[in-house]
Amino acid sequence: MKTIHPTAVVENGAQLGDNVTVGANVIIGSNTVIGNNVTIQNNCEIGVYSAGYNIEPLVIGNNSLIRSQSIFYTGSKFGENLVTGHRVCVREGVNAGNNLQLGTLTDVQGDCLIGDYVRMHSNVHIGKHSKIGNYVWIFPYVVLTNDPHPPSNVTKGVVIEDYVVISTMSVVLPGVVVRKDTLVGAHSLVSKNTNEGTLVAGSPAKEICLASKMRLQDGSRQPAYPWRKHFHRGYSVDVVNDWKAEFKI
Amino acid sequence: MKTIHPTAVVENGAQLGDNVTVGANVIIGSNTVIGNNVTIQNNCEIGVYSAGYNIEPLVIGNNSLIRSQSIFYTGSKFGENLVTGHRVCVREGVNAGNNLQLGTLTDVQGDCLIGDYVRMHSNVHIGKHSKIGNYVWIFPYVVLTNDPHPPSNVTKGVVIEDYVVISTMSVVLPGVVVRKDTLVGAHSLVSKNTNEGTLVAGSPAKEICLASKMRLQDGSRQPAYPWRKHFHRGYSVDVVNDWKAEFKI
Amino acid sequence: MKTIHPTAVVENGAQLGDNVTVGANVIIGSNTVIGNNVTIQNNCEIGVYSAGYNIEPLVIGNNSLIRSQSIFYTGSKFGENLVTGHRVCVREGVNAGNNLQLGTLTDVQGDCLIGDYVRMHSNVHIGKHSKIGNYVWIFPYVVLTNDPHPPSNVTKGVVIEDYVVISTMSVVLPGVVVRKDTLVGAHSLVSKNTNEGTLVAGSPAKEICLASKMRLQDGSRQPAYPWRKHFHRGYSVDVVNDWKAEFKI
Repeated sequence: MKTIHPTAVVENGAQLGDNVTVGANVIIGSNTVIGNNVTIQNNCEIGVYSAGYNIEPLVIGNNSLIRSQSIFYTGSKFGENLVTGHRVCVREGVNAGNNLQLGTLTDVQGDCLIGDYVRMHSNVHIGKHSKIGNYVWIFPYVVLTNDPHPPSNVTKGVVIEDYVVISTMSVVLPGVVVRKDTLVGAHSLVSKNTNEGTLVAGSPAKEICLASKMRLQDGSRQPAYPWRKHFHRGYSVDVVNDWKAEFKI
Repeated sequence: MKTIHPTAVVENGAQLGDNVTVGANVIIGSNTVIGNNVTIQNNCEIGVYSAGYNIEPLVIGNNSLIRSQSIFYTGSKFGENLVTGHRVCVREGVNAGNNLQLGTLTDVQGDCLIGDYVRMHSNVHIGKHSKIGNYVWIFPYVVLTNDPHPPSNVTKGVVIEDYVVISTMSVVLPGVVVRKDTLVGAHSLVSKNTNEGTLVAGSPAKEICLASKMRLQDGSRQPAYPWRKHFHRGYSVDVVNDWKAEFKI
Repeated sequence: MKTIHPTAVVENGAQLGDNVTVGANVIIGSNTVIGNNVTIQNNCEIGVYSAGYNIEPLVIGNNSLIRSQSIFYTGSKFGENLVTGHRVCVREGVNAGNNLQLGTLTDVQGDCLIGDYVRMHSNVHIGKHSKIGNYVWIFPYVVLTNDPHPPSNVTKGVVIEDYVVISTMSVVLPGVVVRKDTLVGAHSLVSKNTNEGTLVAGSPAKEICLASKMRLQDGSRQPAYPWRKHFHRGYSVDVVNDWKAEFKI
């Protein structure tokens, strides 16, 4: 069963799975493949075609929720359980895993790789050619850049490895590798590669200490990092069990 | 009298006061109470319900203007004379006073307290559990955070006291108290509590001087702060008279 | 020939040139003059009238593309070949030349001058009374400010001269002149006038070196600045020939 609002337009050729709900004034382009149990809220434009770009379809996995006023172009592929805020904009060439969250106003410029369980908060800007691993957290107003001397024809995307946390209002400069379990402090400019498991902060960012030196402010005084030792909300039982095994807890 | 655009949808149960104007394609949910003399421009979604959240209504006070493409969830309460820019997004649990201004693209995450006469410019991000006093000014791209070690289950909202000014592109870290009459310079990271009436600036912000040391650049050479000594545009006669009495002017 | 979507509203008095395409749910106000070969995508509001502002029309030049959900008020004038991203918001009093690009979510506050071939990327904020020259590049989350001691009645717009590049997440303080061929590094606070052809960076920004000291990372080791020596994408043959003559290449 599908629930298509009478003011929505679903173009010929668009493939919609079972139990898809489409809100008012939504436009779904012909080159779109939407899985089962997907909700697309009001005023979204899904599968927008832009002349000169590739003609791969937009693929949205099962059990996804796209909030109102969001815009997705053709040529990107999202796994299952995608959840977006409002007014997300996603251009061509994104290849994303499962359980991705894109916060309100987030702007994904396209041509990038995104792993599983990546969570971007509101108003994140992902430059082209970024490579984002798994279980990464990106907070509001973070920008991932790509041009080492703008404007130019050189593009050096950043690499964000697994479990990285980038706090609000930080910029990662072109070609920088933010290594596994790095914590980037708020309002930082990350201008060189980081070391695994460290806290870097400042503009430009410097290595402050091991992230594990930071203590939870919940009364426990346990290390706050790696965060996956204590923060499990929204992850599957399998994922959490892996983490428990990793840390023998 | 009400003026409802023929393409707007006002769900059963929504309460609209006298002289309410509702623009094209607006959707007003059933759990919404809108006062008198309110204008809701085109393409707004007002009283959006999100499963799992509280079922308090959205209340919009008299004489309010909500500009186009804005989104308000249920469960928040706004006093009189609310004015928003375009594409504002407000989640559940906001309790706001009178004369609030929310600039274009401002993103209020919910569960926060906002006093009277608070003015947020474009693209401000208010994290959950923020407490904002009266007569506060917040400029573009300011972020109020709340998680001391993200991601975690600990939330420490910031406190912004009366008359505070936070200049553009500044971040206030979790749990920080920005005291009365503080001026935060542009592009600052406020990482610790400020002292009343001071200018703090930098990343991280340091106390520079008393804010009153800054001089107006209008030829008068009078102190620029406290700003309420000289800036009265948009405040009621009663408010301005109180300020004049306070400063014996 | 015009192609007006049946759900669009074009008010009486609006002037539309030849070969204009207007998308779904677009509203074009009566005080609007649109040139030839212009496309206005879905859900835009064009020529919005705000009480108390001037009654000059909104003028959009030939061969322009305005992407979906954008909002333009009356009282601004744009030359030919304007291209916008999605959800741009432009207030009254902008006087812009030809070949302007405004990225997604860019917020132009009005009462400003913009030259030819200016390219703003996503989420740029242009304060009132800014003066922007020709061939300027402004990257995401840049803010041009104007109030030296907010809130006040004093407005000192910034001046951005020709060929300037302002990298992402930078703020230019009120009244500052960013001189010709300056490169502003990412995440900078520009608090004083810059010297021509220099790289400035930091918060607050300091002069680092001549921008021409930076080398292209394309293997050539040629100077990366002035960028117009090597970067010509999207400029007319005449413009590029002028640059070649300037540098005798």
